[in-house]
Parts: sequence; structure tokens; C-alpha cells
Amino acid sequence: MHQVIRNIPRADRAVIDALGTAGVATVHEAQGRIGCLASHLRPIYTGARTAGSAVTISAAPGDNWMIHVAIEQLQDGDVMVLSPTAPCDMGYFGDLLATSAQARGCRGLIIDAGVRDIRDLTEMNFPVWSRAISAQGTVKETLGSVNVPIVCAGQTIHAGDVIVADDDGVCVVRQADAAAVLDKTRARLALEESKRARLAAGELGLDIYDMRARLAEKGLIYV
Amino acid sequence: MHQVIRNIPRADRAVIDALGTAGVATVHEAQGRIGCLASHLRPIYTGARTAGSAVTISAAPGDNWMIHVAIEQLQDGDVMVLSPTAPCDMGYFGDLLATSAQARGCRGLIIDAGVRDIRDLTEMNFPVWSRAISAQGTVKETLGSVNVPIVCAGQTIHAGDVIVADDDGVCVVRQADAAAVLDKTRARLALEESKRARLAAGELGLDIYDMRARLAEKGLIYV
Amino acid sequence: MHQVIRNIPRADRAVIDALGTAGVATVHEAQGRIGCLASHLRPIYTGARTAGSAVTISAAPGDNWMIHVAIEQLQDGDVMVLSPTAPCDMGYFGDLLATSAQARGCRGLIIDAGVRDIRDLTEMNFPVWSRAISAQGTVKETLGSVNVPIVCAGQTIHAGDVIVADDDGVCVVRQADAAAVLDKTRARLALEESKRARLAAGELGLDIYDMRARLAEKGLIYV
Amino acid sequence: MHQVIRNIPRADRAVIDALGTAGVATVHEAQGRIGCLASHLRPIYTGARTAGSAVTISAAPGDNWMIHVAIEQLQDGDVMVLSPTAPCDMGYFGDLLATSAQARGCRGLIIDAGVRDIRDLTEMNFPVWSRAISAQGTVKETLGSVNVPIVCAGQTIHAGDVIVADDDGVCVVRQADAAAVLDKTRARLALEESKRARLAAGELGLDIYDMRARLAEKGLIYV
Amino acid sequence: MHQVIRNIPRADRAVIDALGTAGVATVHEAQGRIGCLASHLRPIYTGARTAGSAVTISAAPGDNWMIHVAIEQLQDGDVMVLSPTAPCDMGYFGDLLATSAQARGCRGLIIDAGVRDIRDLTEMNFPVWSRAISAQGTVKETLGSVNVPIVCAGQTIHAGDVIVADDDGVCVVRQADAAAVLDKTRARLALEESKRARLAAGELGLDIYDMRARLAEKGLIYV
Amino acid sequence: MHQVIRNIPRADRAVIDALGTAGVATVHEAQGRIGCLASHLRPIYTGARTAGSAVTISAAPGDNWMIHVAIEQLQDGDVMVLSPTAPCDMGYFGDLLATSAQARGCRGLIIDAGVRDIRDLTEMNFPVWSRAISAQGTVKETLGSVNVPIVCAGQTIHAGDVIVADDDGVCVVRQADAAAVLDKTRARLALEESKRARLAAGELGLDIYDMRARLAEKGLIYV
Repeated sequence: MHQVIRNIPRADRAVIDALGTAGVATVHEAQGRIGCLASHLRPIYTGARTAGSAVTISAAPGDNWMIHVAIEQLQDGDVMVLSPTAPCDMGYFGDLLATSAQARGCRGLIIDAGVRDIRDLTEMNFPVWSRAISAQGTVKETLGSVNVPIVCAGQTIHAGDVIVADDDGVCVVRQADAAAVLDKTRARLALEESKRARLAAGELGLDIYDMRARLAEKGLIYV
Repeated sequence: MHQVIRNIPRADRAVIDALGTAGVATVHEAQGRIGCLASHLRPIYTGARTAGSAVTISAAPGDNWMIHVAIEQLQDGDVMVLSPTAPCDMGYFGDLLATSAQARGCRGLIIDAGVRDIRDLTEMNFPVWSRAISAQGTVKETLGSVNVPIVCAGQTIHAGDVIVADDDGVCVVRQADAAAVLDKTRARLALEESKRARLAAGELGLDIYDMRARLAEKGLIYV
Repeated sequence: MHQVIRNIPRADRAVIDALGTAGVATVHEAQGRIGCLASHLRPIYTGARTAGSAVTISAAPGDNWMIHVAIEQLQDGDVMVLSPTAPCDMGYFGDLLATSAQARGCRGLIIDAGVRDIRDLTEMNFPVWSRAISAQGTVKETLGSVNVPIVCAGQTIHAGDVIVADDDGVCVVRQADAAAVLDKTRARLALEESKRARLAAGELGLDIYDMRARLAEKGLIYV
Repeated sequence: MHQVIRNIPRADRAVIDALGTAGVATVHEAQGRIGCLASHLRPIYTGARTAGSAVTISAAPGDNWMIHVAIEQLQDGDVMVLSPTAPCDMGYFGDLLATSAQARGCRGLIIDAGVRDIRDLTEMNFPVWSRAISAQGTVKETLGSVNVPIVCAGQTIHAGDVIVADDDGVCVVRQADAAAVLDKTRARLALEESKRARLAAGELGLDIYDMRARLAEKGLIYV
Repeated sequence: MHQVIRNIPRADRAVIDALGTAGVATVHEAQGRIGCLASHLRPIYTGARTAGSAVTISAAPGDNWMIHVAIEQLQDGDVMVLSPTAPCDMGYFGDLLATSAQARGCRGLIIDAGVRDIRDLTEMNFPVWSRAISAQGTVKETLGSVNVPIVCAGQTIHAGDVIVADDDGVCVVRQADAAAVLDKTRARLALEESKRARLAAGELGLDIYDMRARLAEKGLIYV
Repeated sequence: MHQVIRNIPRADRAVIDALGTAGVATVHEAQGRIGCLASHLRPIYTGARTAGSAVTISAAPGDNWMIHVAIEQLQDGDVMVLSPTAPCDMGYFGDLLATSAQARGCRGLIIDAGVRDIRDLTEMNFPVWSRAISAQGTVKETLGSVNVPIVCAGQTIHAGDVIVADDDGVCVVRQADAAAVLDKTRARLALEESKRARLAAGELGLDIYDMRARLAEKGLIYV
């Protein structure tokens, strides 16, 4: 029942990095407005930003044993994604685990639970998106699994999926879709750039997007 | 049913600016401890601070169409105030809309829903007070209204009301009351200044406010 | 019923300061993973950090009268801890009270309610951990008590208990246990230091903590 | 500032009763899908159902003094609507106040706070929709107002507005609109009746409402 | 992107019914303590109880159009499971849709959003487990999908999975695992029965489960 | 650290029973408006009502081992009170444990976590007040303590304290104060009875409690 999957697919590093540069809002729009994790996941410091391949962790409430197991499975460029099997806000992760993960090339942690040692993690530049900040420690008694599909903050995450995270939250892109989503992301960025200039010049979205007729048709009245 | 009110009253700009300088806590106290929006509205960056005339937006859940409509109604010095017609934490507003609003002189957004592109908005110095930060995009399918009275985070807001917002949250002052509230605000600020000096010198509030007799009368016992 | 206890025990100042330097997560672990206040208490600014002897305040909802009473009881090095007798997010405390408290040597406030004047408190370097930030003012009508035992954010706090607070939240150490907890804290810090070096060098927690056999025994399978 | 408005408009009793019989969901739809109070207001017993003219109460947190004042203003067929000036879940109302209100013909209470004596209120058949059930008592120290406009659970309520409440929650109808809304309600009820029979017979909404073409046009694919 | 999967696997009806009789707690334990949906899903009436094959619905926030589409896909014995693509508590479902669904043999609805017409649904004996009860109506503007995998209240649900729901909440069993889980469920029920008798006779769990030695070994002290 | 206190004081059974008959709201008022546990604790069935001596349980999140330990310590007339050491909504308790507890005379459970087997517990007439209803099972891996002081839903509970619980929630009375609180409770009940008759006859609280002068003095204006 409790297992560690050792070999997982990963998307191309250049694709991952480019998605990370584009950021959560743009990537999520580019792939059809899907993939955002719930907004209760917040970065522990301002300006946190990362992208990587998901190493998933399913853990018992209040038990961080599986993080140690997961760290062995990390490759350079990975992001850990942990979901407890029942709601929990305890502090599963702190500076020692971050030191270990960072030594293996880990780029960050997404956790639908709590995290601690915020000051240290900030100094280490190890970004975490979490449900809570809590010093409350956990035990190492109950098994979980690593690299099985999990649900984290309302999204299914498979090992190797691309995780993009920044000030706006967290988004998942399926590993097999990453390259195609990047193409759409680039198209969207180009489009946004042209619109930004027009909007900055004072043109109205009503005109740029040609909305006036449809608003009238739906019945909007100006008084 | 769905309408855009084009002509709205606005308070005097100098009054608005002076209220903004005084800040939320002082203005709210000066007008009789009323007008604070609920505390779940938080600024998206530290040090955010604004004041302006409300352009109100009533929008369907997950639908930001009316923001485009509202932007056309903005005048220099306005603040947009958006309330969804049912609870929603989706990201209605981001850097493109902020670019457009800022081009028209808009000073910020109060939104009882979500916002995104936090990094860009911070760089643009476009302040937002929101219920959530969420990259989740919205649609443009359902009409709402602009400049009708709305309820936002527990307060009724009329178009043209003065909005004051800072690190402490958001406060509304009725447009017709703005000048009178400013007078009371100034009186309060002067009073606070004199008290601050005495308190900093070590005098006790118990003595400055003459509280000891009333505490004893109510039955407070020192052991 | 409503009383102010004037003489309270306090832990040794050097012990308190050393616990503060160690921080919440380490102190909480050192004393057996107990004492953390609930994670909804958050510092009002990044980097807030304090330690001190608790002066406890039991106050009616929306009534900050007892803070004035408590300030007279403050000694240099104290931290105020306030719990309302029913849930409340109103702004009990702001810059004037902070000025008064700081003038008496107070090192901060822990409050399971709201606080305001965030900008001023930050400039004053007066740290507060609170449930909410709210400009909503309070009244002075109903008595409470000072230095009686209270429950604050899920923990019982006695007057004179040691409060440690930082970015990770707030922890309480019983006054009588403070010296012993400091000894355990130091032992833990030394242990952590040695582990940190090994983890940074790439050794795995699985090996350092000798977990492989127990994981296998519990049934973990590698695929 | 604190006032009691004694003379308020009320809608026609027969109209109010007919709206009550139609129920919240239907009335809310009939008036254009507006007027629902937030879903955290729940009836204290199964099957609670009422309609009446609003007597509004603005009260301080944890202070039920104004309910006594409001009861004097009650007329036969009224419903009290109370909103605290800051969030509060304390038990403002119990069997004694219900006895007094019922003696004056009051048909129920809508309260965005707490209520107690649930067993007694149920036996008395005095319906209450509340945010919380709490035995925590309140004080009588701070003034509020009666029959001023209030915001309750996200809706503005004016004295004399029609309140409709049942298992689905609470809805407000403006006093001046009540008769017109009733007409639309009746039309809607008739329409629903005819649809219900067809749906019960196995016809699909897709066909009754002629949705297939529009679904295809928007791009829905059957696999 | 938006699709309706017409042919889905379903578990054996007798197996489904037997799982339903066993109930959520037992089934969840029998399959290894997995599959519970989050506890915020609550039945709309006491004693609600059902089991069936999942017809999944992914719907936009505040838009119930896809329920009409899903009803056409229902077979006798199915349960609808709806998850909005962003958090929403609006009333997606009421008595007309229930009439239609029931006419096609539908056994109930699991919805991580709101529902209305509680009185009618109760009289119809049409059980619903929901996040909220809300009369707030929805629109029919935006496409979703039917019978694609969804995440509902923290669990991934595939079309055809077995849904078991009762007073304790909701549990999902994978379609392919249903028969095996039923075997384990029966074994567990038999075991529980024997234990119940011994416990009722006053024997202690400490003795029945032979816990005393392990408690002592872990360090439990009796004072 | 983890201990079971075997000998605890208990209040007189007749006193406990009389407090239970008076109910939560009255007892809480009689002892000075203190002792209510937080309102998120709700009974699992309508009409639940109990009173007894507290057997306290401090348990790890998601771990119900200590309930087995506590059951051995139960005497006829006791009520178990469980608080997890970190927030948790899992289902710690169900029909088997209830069978065991009931066999030893236990009158109910107060638990700031989850409970399951609601249907069975209701049939057994075993009342529970809980934070959540959840089928999610727990483990037996980590020690806790029995009959040590705990904080449960915001109140400190000592072993042997009197617990009173009904539809209004839960209240604690200190063991040593029980008889005195009962005296005050009886006085209050008598007083309430006389007031109820007058209020039912149409007299106003404004007159019975002589409030008019004080309202006027505070500045209430009738318009």
C-alpha cells in the first residue's frame, strides 16, 4: 500500500524554466484556465518564485517521515509537493530538511499543511508555499507514499508534473503537456504585451476587445 | 436591471487627500467608530496607502466584465470598489487592467474577491485590498452594474463615497460627510499628539484619562 | 470577580533572553513539543522577534479598558498577552497604547484579537502577534482581569510564564521550567548544528537517523 | 448618533404572507436573483419558516441592549433583523426575549451573531436564523440603533423591508417592490409547476429549455 | 476541451448496494483508511444514506448548466458528483433538477458547492451532501465537462467510481476495487460484531487489543 | 511526560444532575458568564443533553489510542473531554468506543475534533459534542495523557470539573465551585420564571429592568 516510485518522467528543463519565468497567472491562462491550486497556499516570503518537476508526498497528519524518504528521490530541479491525508496545519518542514533538500538540488516545497523556521528558509532562499506557518513539530510513526498521484489544495498532482509557483500562488502543468503549454504561454505573453501598450496609452478594453455591442445586446443600460 | 450610472458626486480632492494622510484608524474613530470594511480585506503589499472617490462595481461570481465597463467611468483620483454578488475568491484583476485603470488616474482597488499579478501590481505601485490572492482567471459572460450602491465586506458603499485605505484596512466616509469628518479627524489628531507625548514620558492612561475612580466603582479589585 | 494581581513571579532575564535567541521552533521542541499557540496568531511585520514575561489580560469582546490597567503592572522585559472572553477581531491596540507600553519597557503584545496602526507599530519596532489587523475601535465599559490565568489561542498562560515569539509564531514556557528548558534547548541547538553540516554535505536523513530498517519493517515498498 | 426610528413603512400583510408561502428560493429568483443573505445564516431548527416586516437592530459586539429597545417598536407580523457592528458569535437572544417578542406578535429573528436557548425557542416555535449557536451571554452597556439601515450577512436591510426565511436561508425584498415581486413570484411558480410535471415524466431539461444547439455552438463535445 | 464522456464503467449493482449498507466509516476502513471526502460535505437531512456509481460534473463557479447535460447521462443507480472549478457556495441544484434526476433513477448528489429547496428535496427523499445550503441561483453561460476525472472535496473521483454516503459523510471506492473492498468490508463487519459484544459486556479495549505492554514500552505512566 | 492520573475529585452527583437539568445557558450565567466552550462544538443530534464529571484526554492529532486508556478510568456519571494537541478534524470516536464507554457508565463525549458512526451513536443515545463529523479513521501510535489539565475549545478543563452540555453547547464548572454555582443557578431560574410571566403578558423589558433612564442618559434618541 505504501510505496515509493523511483523512476518518474520529467519535463524538459528548458521548458520548465521558461514556464517559471512566465509565471502562474499566464501559464494557467495559456493552458485553458486550469491547474491553479487553492488560494490558501501562500508563499512564506515576498518575491518567492520557482518552477520544477513534482516529487509528490502523501503523508499522515502530523507525520513528516515521508519527507526524509522523498529527499532521496530528488533530482536537481525538483519541487516537493506534500499533501496530508487529512487536514493538518502542523509544521512538517524546517531548516534542516531544507538544507538536505537544497543539497540535492530541490527548488522548493508546496505543502497543504504547515512549515516553520521561516527566517532560516528565507535566508536560504528556499521557497515554500504552505497553508500555515506553525512551529508545532511532527512525529515519524506512520508510513505514506512518494511519487504516487496526490490531491493537493484541490488539484491532482502526478509525479513529474511541472509546478510553477510565484506571488500569485501555485499552478500545475501535466508533464506531457508542458511543451505545448509553453507555446501557448509565449503566444499569450506576446499578445499581452501589445495590449499593455495600448491600455497604458489610455485606450479602453471596451474598445480593444470590442465589447460594446455585446454589452448592449445583453441589456446593459447607461444612465 | 443592469446599469451604469455615469454622473456621480465626488468629494473635494483636498479633503480626500487629507483623509488619506490621516489614515484609516483615525478617520474611522473621528466619524464615530463607523465605516470599517471587514478585516479579511488585506493590502497586497506592505505600505499600501490610498484615498479616493468610490466607483462601485457589482459583478457576478467569477466574471470580471464589469471592470472594463467601470474603467471608462473612472476619473483621476478614483478608487474602484468591487463586490461579487456571491462569495468568490477568483482573480478578477491583474496587471493589464491595472495598467488601464492607472492610465485613467485610478488610485487603487478594493475587492471582496481575488486579485493576481501581485509582483507587477507592486512594481506599478497600484495598491489593492482584497480577500484573496488567486491566479484563477474569470470570464466575461454576465452583466453587473457600475456605480449602484453595493455592499462590500460588510459596508454599504455608494458611488462617490470617500475610500481611505492603508495597512490597517479600508474605511468608507459618506461623500456628503467628508468635510465634516475631516474636521473631526484633525481635532482627533491634535488630541492624540498631546497624549502621545505624555504617554511616551511614562504617564499612565489610567491617570491621563482619569479612569481609576470608574474602575473602582465598577468593582475592580487589586490583589 | 474582576481583579488585578500585582505581584507575579518572573523567570531570570538571562534565561528569557537566551530562549528568545533560540526561537519558537527550537524551544517548543526542546520542552517536548508543547506550548505552541495556534497558528492563526501572526506577526504584524516580517522579522518580528521577542521574548519576555507574560502579563496576562482577560478582556471583554470589543473592550480594551484592561490594557490601560495592565500597562501599570508592566515591568521592563514584559510581554502583554491578551485574550478576549469571546471571539473578537476588533482593533484593541494601536500606537498610543504601544507608546505607553514601550515607555514601561514592554517588549511586545500577543493578542487573540485585532490590532491597528500597523505602520506606526512597525516604525516603533513594537512587535505584535495577532489574529487580525483591524482599525475597528473598542470601548471602555466592561471590566476584565489582569494577571489571572487565561487561555490564549489554545494555550493556558499564567502571569510570569515566558513568552517566546518570532516569524514561526508564539510559544509559552512555564516560568518554573524556564531554566531547564533552556538547558534542553542548548543541547538541541548543538545537535542540530552537527546535523545541519552533514545534511548540507549531502548525507541523507534516512542514513543519519538510521531510518531504513524501520521503514522496511513497517512495510514501505520501493518500486 | 444612536437613534430609534419609530414610524416605518410596512408592506401589505397579504403580500408578505404570500411571499412567505412561496419561499426564499422562488422569491429570490422572481426578483432577479438578488436579495439572498449569506449562507452562513442557518435556521436553529428544521422546518423553520417565516415572513415579516423588518425591524432592524444595529448593536455593539456582545451587547444585546438594543433588542429590548427594538421589542417596544415591534408590531404584529414583524421580524427582527440584528447585525453587530463587528463580527460576534455571542448569544444575544434567548427564551426570555423570545417570550417578550412573541407577546408582541413578532414572527422571528434574523441575527448575524449567536443565539441560545435552542430547545425553548424550538418548543415556542419561534424561528431564528443565526450565524452561531452560543450560550455566551452579553452585556447592556453600549447604545446602538433601531430601524436604521443596516448591513446583515452581506445585504442592506431597511426597516420595513420584507424578510422571507425558510430552510434555504433568508431573502430580503424591498418594501416598495413587494407587490411587484409577488406578481413575478406567482408567474414563476406557475411556470415551475408545468416544468416539474414534464421533468417528472422523464423529459430532459436539455429539450424543455432547448439547450442543445447553444451547447454545441459553445463547443461541447460528446465522446 | 469541454466534453461529455458517454460510456463509463460501473461496478456491480449488488456490490454497490452492499457497500452502501455497510456505510462510510466501515468501507473507508476496509479499503485501508482512504477515500473520505472532506468533512465540510454534510447531508441536507438527518438519516440521508445512499450508494451509487459516480457521474462526475466539472462546472464553472455559479453555473449549473452542466447538470442538465449530466442528467441525460444518468442511469438507474447513479449518483451525481459535482465540483466547481473554483470555490463557490451558490445553490446549483433544487427541486426541479432533483425531479428530473430522480425520474432517471438517480440516487443522490454530492456537491462541493451549495444546494437549495431543502424542504422539497427532503420530502422527495432525494439525498444531497453539500458544502452549503444557499438559495442563490446560478446561470447557464459557461461550459464544463461530464464524466471526466474531477477533484471533489479533496478526493479524485472518476466516472463510475462507487460513492458511499451517509450521516458520517462521503467516501469513494475505485470502480475496479469495489468487489475486493466489499470482501474486506464484510470481514471487518464480522470482526466488529464480535468486539462490540465483548465491549458491551464491560471488557476493555486495552485488554481485547492487548495494548498494555506497548503503552508501557512507549513510556505511559500511571499516577 | 505522558501520564494517566487515576484518582480525581468529582463533584456531588446530585449537584451535577441538577446543573444538567438547568442547562448550559443558565449555569454559565449563574457563575458569572464564564465557562462556555467555543461555539464550534455542536451536538451530533438534536436534543442531546448531558452532565457529568470530566475525564480529560490529551491526544496526538489523528491518534485515538488514549481513548482506550481513558475508558478504563471512567466511573459511572463521567463525561470524556478530548482535545488534540494540534487542530484535527479526524474521526477519533465511533460506535465501538461508545459501546465500551457506555458499558462503564459514561454519559457522553466532548471532543474538539471529529466523530463518526453518527447513526449508531444516536440510536445508542450516546451524546457527543464535536468540532466535526468525519469518518476518517485514526491510528494508535503516539502517547498522550489522561486526567491532566487540558485546553478544549478555548477553556481549561481539569479532571473532575463538571461538564454541562445541551443544544446550546458546552459549559464547564470547576469541581470545587459546583455546589455554589448550583445555588446561584436556582436563584437565577426562579428570577427568570417570574420575568417570563411578565414578559409573556406583554410587559416590556425596558420597564421590568428599568432601562429607560439609562438609555436616555447615554444619549439614545427617539425619532
